[in-house]
Amino acid sequence: MKIEAIDLFYIALPEIRRAADSSQDSLVVRIRADNGLIGWGECDGSPLGNLAAYVMPMSHQNIINLNEALLGETVDSPDDVVRLRAKAGRYGLDVQQIDHAVAGADVALWDLVGKYVGEPVYRLLGYENSYPKLPYSSVLFGETPEETRRIATRIRDDGYSAAKFGWSPMGEGTLEDDVALVAAARDGLGPGPQLMVDAGVIWGSDDAAAFERAERFAEFEVTWLEEPLLPDEVDAYRRLTDRRPSVAIAAGEGCDFYRAADDLMVNGGIDYIQIDVARIGGITVADRICRRAQELDVTYVNHNYKSHLTVAASIHVFAGIEKFRLFEYPDGESPLIRGLTAPTGIFVNSDGLVEAPDVPGLGVEVSVEAIRKFLRTVRIEIDGKVLHETPVI
Amino acid sequence: MKIEAIDLFYIALPEIRRAADSSQDSLVVRIRADNGLIGWGECDGSPLGNLAAYVMPMSHQNIINLNEALLGETVDSPDDVVRLRAKAGRYGLDVQQIDHAVAGADVALWDLVGKYVGEPVYRLLGYENSYPKLPYSSVLFGETPEETRRIATRIRDDGYSAAKFGWSPMGEGTLEDDVALVAAARDGLGPGPQLMVDAGVIWGSDDAAAFERAERFAEFEVTWLEEPLLPDEVDAYRRLTDRRPSVAIAAGEGCDFYRAADDLMVNGGIDYIQIDVARIGGITVADRICRRAQELDVTYVNHNYKSHLTVAASIHVFAGIEKFRLFEYPDGESPLIRGLTAPTGIFVNSDGLVEAPDVPGLGVEVSVEAIRKFLRTVRIEIDGKVLHETPVI
Repeated sequence: MKIEAIDLFYIALPEIRRAADSSQDSLVVRIRADNGLIGWGECDGSPLGNLAAYVMPMSHQNIINLNEALLGETVDSPDDVVRLRAKAGRYGLDVQQIDHAVAGADVALWDLVGKYVGEPVYRLLGYENSYPKLPYSSVLFGETPEETRRIATRIRDDGYSAAKFGWSPMGEGTLEDDVALVAAARDGLGPGPQLMVDAGVIWGSDDAAAFERAERFAEFEVTWLEEPLLPDEVDAYRRLTDRRPSVAIAAGEGCDFYRAADDLMVNGGIDYIQIDVARIGGITVADRICRRAQELDVTYVNHNYKSHLTVAASIHVFAGIEKFRLFEYPDGESPLIRGLTAPTGIFVNSDGLVEAPDVPGLGVEVSVEAIRKFLRTVRIEIDGKVLHETPVI
Repeated sequence: MKIEAIDLFYIALPEIRRAADSSQDSLVVRIRADNGLIGWGECDGSPLGNLAAYVMPMSHQNIINLNEALLGETVDSPDDVVRLRAKAGRYGLDVQQIDHAVAGADVALWDLVGKYVGEPVYRLLGYENSYPKLPYSSVLFGETPEETRRIATRIRDDGYSAAKFGWSPMGEGTLEDDVALVAAARDGLGPGPQLMVDAGVIWGSDDAAAFERAERFAEFEVTWLEEPLLPDEVDAYRRLTDRRPSVAIAAGEGCDFYRAADDLMVNGGIDYIQIDVARIGGITVADRICRRAQELDVTYVNHNYKSHLTVAASIHVFAGIEKFRLFEYPDGESPLIRGLTAPTGIFVNSDGLVEAPDVPGLGVEVSVEAIRKFLRTVRIEIDGKVLHETPVI
């Protein structure tokens, strides 16, 4: 089949809050083939910035937009998706945003090819079986220990066996304030569930501050301390992991391309690599990192805090690896998390686990009504001529 | 002084050719302070993509645009520039394009502060003296050895003592075709001038192909072989440099942030690190890499193929380091190279050298007429409301 159209939909909540909550907007990518089949994907990052990478005028041979790279191309097999991903990378060699932007198209192409050949994406990646994952509820800390405890209690009552608390106010007060937040989370969850802490890069390059927290958090049986340092600070990660902290170290959501993840694993010495398929250039690159993690004995975990379109894309990447068992499951209030693919989604079953759908493609469908409801129309003109206009849906 | 306005100008030649020539367009950034002073900078990369990073709607606390990060801020000193660069990075933590985009503002702020305190930028960076650099004419290979020889002869006749030839058709034919191109370049230059070869990432991750070329090119006294491999392929660089090829290895233009450059130097084992100040987030980050290169005994060289605004920004970064002597000097036909700052520029003196201007700021002024002549007006609307419109100049 041939790629006939790439439709870009910028969706957003009516009001965007200044919180570490990336489920407030999205760029949804729809790829239509000439045989009528449709694939869907989604980009993390700025919707307008990602959209620009699809439509920007050519600057030179290494800055050519994604529409130009992909429209009219033939795509019948996984090999074609890999070939087109590489082509898009060459056309966008000097486009920094390329990885966030192409992620949506790459995911949509895997979805499309899965539907075309009648296989779920994890099979296209070469895995015979898919294994259930343990979803962890991914939430922000409350503003106080009390609020954090209430959130943890709700998560326990919802039946989760694992939860991650992240970002503000972690690291903004004293060491004892940080400990109180983690203690409250554990208290609310009770002794059973796994607990993870996401520090949201708050200690920058200060590995000593991160180490001190890891040691203090250990008594609350914390599975990992996530992103204590900035993604750029690989040497600081190495100093931290060389001291063998009592809590495992996780990072990787800040990685936008393969080498950044490999660098963190090999030179940063982290224990868990957390890859956002909607940032790192799609399933093609996430799959390469997942295989590399196995070689290095690092545990692969998805990162995602967008819709169930990305939840689905995330799970297919490592569905085939039984030992990679934890799964980040966005558990916020935004209607874009569960609403974009309503009524389908990757839901927690009665055993408390999630599984890749055993149907062709990603296994979730996008709700056209949801896109209409949250759509922001975009119009870009250059020298008075229309470069891009949101398509009718 | 306070930052009162950030004006963005997308300039481009009337016709953009599909060649590895990044001097065909630009995003020029003008920062105006409340005391009437003006600073200028320029971004490499897609002008529309970079512009988006200045005006994109907020997505969440880690995707906030550059205007929001910078407008109204106080900037009186180098410390303020460093502080604002860090703030812009935090606001744009999840904006992949942030480094290319903020480069223009960072350069403009150094220019502005230099004018404010009455010092050239290299002094603001802590250097007492500035040392002249040997400019190498940076050109593309001709389509054939004959055309390459003619270009080389012209460069020699223009009085250059060094030249770099790059990109297509290097690597697209046989090994012998590649050797013939380099032989022709040396033949045209004659025996005196330094000769560099830029392979334009053509061998991907194939370090054996790169090694074979390095060995064959050595007889033509090639100073370095540049970017034989993709920026992502740091392990392949290490395999290549571990074999100690007869020609030094250079790379770095593909680095968008500090760690990428540090990774290539430390783990890739390269001999020359080539930093584009208009891509890597500006003078602030380039300066950090220049200091790191000294620690690691790697030679710092600028990369640039835009206007003399970026030529000026580039030279201030390492003007103070005598031993870093080579300077990439864009030598193409585009009127945007010399025309943007006409009549000022960093010109080759009678000794064949270039120097950082000893006047406040960057030392070049942007021609408003040139901007008017090449301006592309941009208008972005979201939900029918104007998000951005090119300002009147």
